Amino acid sequence: VVFIMSIHDEFEFIKQITPKGRLKPDILVGIGDDAAVIRPFEQTDIIACTDTMVEDVHFTRKTMNPYQVGYKALAANISDVAAMGGKSSYYLVSLVVPSNWSQQELIEIYKGMEDLANQHDTVLIGGDTVSTKGPLVVTVTVLGRIKSNKNLKRSDAVPGDLVFITGTVGDSAAGLHILLYEKDSNTYLINRHQLPSPQTEAGLLLSSFDRVALNDISDGVASEAIEIAEASNVDIELNESMLPLSKDILAFGRDQAIKWALYGGEDYQLIGTVPTENWDELERVFIKNRIRVTRVGEVHKGTGKVYLKKEESLFELKKQGYNHFKNGDRNE
Amino acid sequence: VVFIMSIHDEFEFIKQITPKGRLKPDILVGIGDDAAVIRPFEQTDIIACTDTMVEDVHFTRKTMNPYQVGYKALAANISDVAAMGGKSSYYLVSLVVPSNWSQQELIEIYKGMEDLANQHDTVLIGGDTVSTKGPLVVTVTVLGRIKSNKNLKRSDAVPGDLVFITGTVGDSAAGLHILLYEKDSNTYLINRHQLPSPQTEAGLLLSSFDRVALNDISDGVASEAIEIAEASNVDIELNESMLPLSKDILAFGRDQAIKWALYGGEDYQLIGTVPTENWDELERVFIKNRIRVTRVGEVHKGTGKVYLKKEESLFELKKQGYNHFKNGDRNE
Repeated sequence: VVFIMSIHDEFEFIKQITPKGRLKPDILVGIGDDAAVIRPFEQTDIIACTDTMVEDVHFTRKTMNPYQVGYKALAANISDVAAMGGKSSYYLVSLVVPSNWSQQELIEIYKGMEDLANQHDTVLIGGDTVSTKGPLVVTVTVLGRIKSNKNLKRSDAVPGDLVFITGTVGDSAAGLHILLYEKDSNTYLINRHQLPSPQTEAGLLLSSFDRVALNDISDGVASEAIEIAEASNVDIELNESMLPLSKDILAFGRDQAIKWALYGGEDYQLIGTVPTENWDELERVFIKNRIRVTRVGEVHKGTGKVYLKKEESLFELKKQGYNHFKNGDRNE
Repeated sequence: VVFIMSIHDEFEFIKQITPKGRLKPDILVGIGDDAAVIRPFEQTDIIACTDTMVEDVHFTRKTMNPYQVGYKALAANISDVAAMGGKSSYYLVSLVVPSNWSQQELIEIYKGMEDLANQHDTVLIGGDTVSTKGPLVVTVTVLGRIKSNKNLKRSDAVPGDLVFITGTVGDSAAGLHILLYEKDSNTYLINRHQLPSPQTEAGLLLSSFDRVALNDISDGVASEAIEIAEASNVDIELNESMLPLSKDILAFGRDQAIKWALYGGEDYQLIGTVPTENWDELERVFIKNRIRVTRVGEVHKGTGKVYLKKEESLFELKKQGYNHFKNGDRNE
């Protein structure tokens, strides 16, 4: 029974959010029963993660339209799966809906998720929709898969490893800044904020290496590097001059760009470490697959600290948030 | 980084919610990385479902304490897995936290979940905690397992089947009524509302039968029977005099008790259908395992309608909600 004020025609709503076409053979029961049932592939482990976005905390009506809210909520999860070296397969959605979101807007949220899901061969298998007098809340849970024993943990960094980052960092925070404060627009940076691209392909390439420590960049380079350093009980030294920055972000000045890269977050790129002797091969594989990867630092013996090397000085980096309206969050 | 206002000591918070003891061998990566990694058992399918509870929609501070909020949010999901004939194994938690919930109360929510989880051999493997200016939102995702091809769908009812219900129904709604409106208390009924018992064992017993159509009773007997009837394209006739009612609920009068049973919901018992020739065996197995099961009606040819037989008259039942502050919700 639907008592959600926004949903006037339940049948039409469910029809619109149900995945089109035939179910994949590994989905034995899809959307529409008490629970979904899936069949694992042989020699394959299951990855599971969940991530929540709250209106006026992670986005506002001004910074993101409903399609983008859905797209990004799913992207954050696909990114977590990629950071384990895995491939997303299924997702479940919990939508907590205030009365001022229309049925059409809810369908747009699902459409944003579905379009990204299709790019990653990922299928909606269940969910829950409830009403609220508070803000909109979108919680997405993604199940993914990875060949047995191939998962990439953040605790596997070893002194002597090189540190690398995929793509460019800071762009999402710059895009948000433009949406909130600038008169001039910049489609590239705004897109990086509203429609981020989780790095599934990069994660898969990395999973073929013997040992990689890996994190996705949801909270900024500083915070993610610290998580790797702490989990691996090593120190990490990042070279400020090597951080991969887009030309669009550099238009705001190098100091500002570095701040966004370190503390902005939501880039959903990957940061990781690899043994020095594997670096050439890693770079070769990434070039072949046309994915940007940049060496940014190295791993030293230590106790979980991260230092930024700027010219010949070292500054210790701390976990800190930056975003304007973001109160922040925590992933377990 | 924790910016959640309620959480003052992140390290202590995470320590308190992390499952105690050694990880089970099927959990390769538990709480604390980008995502969890689990190893499926052989010849076993994976069940997945998600369910959300919102403050002032599904509960209030008056009707449920934090421990009970956690317990019940997980119970709703374990119940969905049981309704597929499966056993819950892992859960992920998204907590959306307003500033007026304290760190101790958040830990109580997790404690309520953990106590129920331990009863069902189910382990926390991940989650997300974010802040909000709105009400508390708890979203739980449960992964369960079931022997390959043994899942029990709601679409498998066939004319000639008998309809059964486990336990008693209506107790949760009666408990809520007492909490909201009565001066005298009733521990049994209030417990049924605050600390419901998902019927994992009953679901497992049912999964050993060749064909059972099954639903859990989250929205009331009427609504759940209609879901089975619609999914199976049959009609169901329920006998009003056979509905299993506790003696505590009957103290409110039979008519009121029946209303609670049909429309109250949140009993998390199971309703299902089974071929007539299997009924004696089913009853025997349930008696042996000391689980109450009651035959309540039968399945006829039809088009998805449910009728209540009272004395010699038939009334068609409609999906409708009942709860006092519950705006309602929808499961996909």
